[in-house]
Amino acid sequence: MKPRQPGIKVPTPTADCWEMRDGFDNLDCYRPLIDKRAILFSAFDMTKLIVQTQYATFHNDLHLQNGATLNPVTLAYETYGELNADRSNAILILHALSGDAHVAGFNSPDEGRPGWWDEAVGPGKAFNTDKYYVICSNVIGGCKGSTGPASVNPATNSPFGLSFPVVTIADMVESQRWLLDYLGIEQLLTVTGGSMGGMQALQWAVSYPERVKSAIILASTARLSAQTIALNEVARQAIYADPNWNQGDYYGKSPPNAGLAVARMIGHITYLSDASMREKFGRRLQERERYGYDFNTDFAVESYLRYRGNAFTRRFDANSFLYITKAMDYFDLSYGLPSLAAAFERARSKFMVVSYTSDWLYPSWQSKELVRSLLQNGLDATYFEIVSDYGHESFLLEVDRLAELARDFLGRLMTSKSYKPAAVYKDIAADI
Amino acid sequence: MKPRQPGIKVPTPTADCWEMRDGFDNLDCYRPLIDKRAILFSAFDMTKLIVQTQYATFHNDLHLQNGATLNPVTLAYETYGELNADRSNAILILHALSGDAHVAGFNSPDEGRPGWWDEAVGPGKAFNTDKYYVICSNVIGGCKGSTGPASVNPATNSPFGLSFPVVTIADMVESQRWLLDYLGIEQLLTVTGGSMGGMQALQWAVSYPERVKSAIILASTARLSAQTIALNEVARQAIYADPNWNQGDYYGKSPPNAGLAVARMIGHITYLSDASMREKFGRRLQERERYGYDFNTDFAVESYLRYRGNAFTRRFDANSFLYITKAMDYFDLSYGLPSLAAAFERARSKFMVVSYTSDWLYPSWQSKELVRSLLQNGLDATYFEIVSDYGHESFLLEVDRLAELARDFLGRLMTSKSYKPAAVYKDIAADI
Repeated sequence: MKPRQPGIKVPTPTADCWEMRDGFDNLDCYRPLIDKRAILFSAFDMTKLIVQTQYATFHNDLHLQNGATLNPVTLAYETYGELNADRSNAILILHALSGDAHVAGFNSPDEGRPGWWDEAVGPGKAFNTDKYYVICSNVIGGCKGSTGPASVNPATNSPFGLSFPVVTIADMVESQRWLLDYLGIEQLLTVTGGSMGGMQALQWAVSYPERVKSAIILASTARLSAQTIALNEVARQAIYADPNWNQGDYYGKSPPNAGLAVARMIGHITYLSDASMREKFGRRLQERERYGYDFNTDFAVESYLRYRGNAFTRRFDANSFLYITKAMDYFDLSYGLPSLAAAFERARSKFMVVSYTSDWLYPSWQSKELVRSLLQNGLDATYFEIVSDYGHESFLLEVDRLAELARDFLGRLMTSKSYKPAAVYKDIAADI
Repeated sequence: MKPRQPGIKVPTPTADCWEMRDGFDNLDCYRPLIDKRAILFSAFDMTKLIVQTQYATFHNDLHLQNGATLNPVTLAYETYGELNADRSNAILILHALSGDAHVAGFNSPDEGRPGWWDEAVGPGKAFNTDKYYVICSNVIGGCKGSTGPASVNPATNSPFGLSFPVVTIADMVESQRWLLDYLGIEQLLTVTGGSMGGMQALQWAVSYPERVKSAIILASTARLSAQTIALNEVARQAIYADPNWNQGDYYGKSPPNAGLAVARMIGHITYLSDASMREKFGRRLQERERYGYDFNTDFAVESYLRYRGNAFTRRFDANSFLYITKAMDYFDLSYGLPSLAAAFERARSKFMVVSYTSDWLYPSWQSKELVRSLLQNGLDATYFEIVSDYGHESFLLEVDRLAELARDFLGRLMTSKSYKPAAVYKDIAADI
């Protein structure tokens, strides 16, 4: 399933590195050009880990929080490493807004760049595939192989568009629970993710406490703040404002690329920090010696944003952007409860919560609020605040620090006594 | 020129306060509804200060930094208080991105809301019009009565649109220098402004050191950061993406309101702070008891942004938004110089620099960088960092603290020895 092909040469990073590594959600590609470090490409000198994206389709009614049902439900996923005999070494990784199941390695020897968190997942890495069986699942509502607004609505035989039901983080987790059942995983050693991936991981610990031995929550929150809702809403408004969006009915026609590009540019600013933008771009001009006094690109940071915004339209569906940001906005584990602490009354997992000093999208106070709520329930919760200038993207970039923390945390878990799973849900029918 | 009409009743603030005070750049209106304070409306119980916007048109070539010339040049302005006998009590107030000359009072007894900084300008206020002669000047490139892209190009007899030359902060100041000459003001007691107003004030101190006895710089910077350039660029992209923008050629047709609204929403998020949005909106729903699971407005913060974005399109020109944000992006007093300190070698003014702890658009490090550069030149510079949760808008809202600081600073100036102005520029011809 995971043959390794040694000795495959990978192109050296060049000035065209933006192009080469497009599709990443982070600035990996850009960083070496700026600070002259090449550490990010070190893995390229080794072998290429080849992995295939797999698809599980479930012919069951997925009962969504809004009362609607979805059937069939396809989830894209990838796996790495080997499940051990007592099935106790499974790690579920969940991705952020625009991520996918392809977390590490290469889907083919020709693929120019590895998965989105290749630095953290692989042999000897933070999530060590020599020891752990790593699963990365995509989300419903997305456009990366799982059922979403671009999927064909069986009732009409044409794409759902806006007739796709609004899904929540809990709905995403429910479909992932089917996937775990299908894979025969009774209990996860850990469930982890950054940003929206962390929200899914938290929801897992709340929805299925007995199936989650531990959760590692990175750069995330237990409930979206007003500021983050506002940023999501403005990004959605940029899509609505594009006449090509056409109330979501644009499949087979010109998609709302202009609006989606603006939405993505807003996002990119929020993933960085004032400090990292100052370091990476400052007021450096782009292929100019002096100001142009026109509306073309003057500054490198403008060029970067325009490039990233446009590139995003080639790999993401605008309707999925709407559905996924809305799922995030609705995410509030305390919804309908007297307090956030009440949300964790049934939780039994061990938690490691990590925030990053310069992350202003999911600032540390939100992680601290979460940890307080866990401790109020007597749960085993560890909190780390990592000093980093990389902003929200720190969770993707500060992998050395994460590797240390994860190694300790997971190592202790493997030797500690496991909770007895209360039940394994098997009420699903799947095909792949 | 400034008759006062006592006893005019002003409507009590209501739940419809957003509507009533639309046009403000700040959350004044919103604050009383949230934190139950009514202080912002206290002035309403008094008399109405009636003031007329005036217009000075200069029939001279304004030589712009990009090499182009502009002729004629109209500036909108307002004045308050009386110029004293030795013309030593003039204060020039300069406004932010979307402001105008109407800084205080009412343009008519029927006007529902006062000028944009009425809390800080008037009898007994921070800029006390019983003692000082206050001038507020609009900017070229804008759409509030001064020459800008919506003005008629005398060469074509139709609106400039994108054929309007790109202007800079220095160009704005040059036209304001004409206005000062026209008004017969040899030296300003102080020049002040927040945000882009502070940039103009700094430029005044650099371009015309002998005409600026002091400068009060609020929530501003000596050079725009990469993050702020990025935010401006995304806002511009939202306008470009609107087909109605039509390369700036939309006068007499449908304007790019959808794009401009998105641009403004981005701006509004940056004017607030994580903390102020949490306090004002949190996750409060808008006229709903439960989540709607649709793409209508769920959260109060969404409703607020949509409202503000749309309202802005009724009072601002999209092309002016482009020109003014571009002027800000180009603002860098160290441009072409070895250091920021070098920019102030000729400066002779006294400076008071104020930043606000939660302002992430123009964070305190930028004000500190500015103050360091001033001190490196042996200039008299005072710095205050005001603790406030109101974000960038603190400069508009924290007027009590500002009043204390300004009263001290200006009081000391009035009694100190004035620089002898080197020259008064009179090479202009004006009509109003």
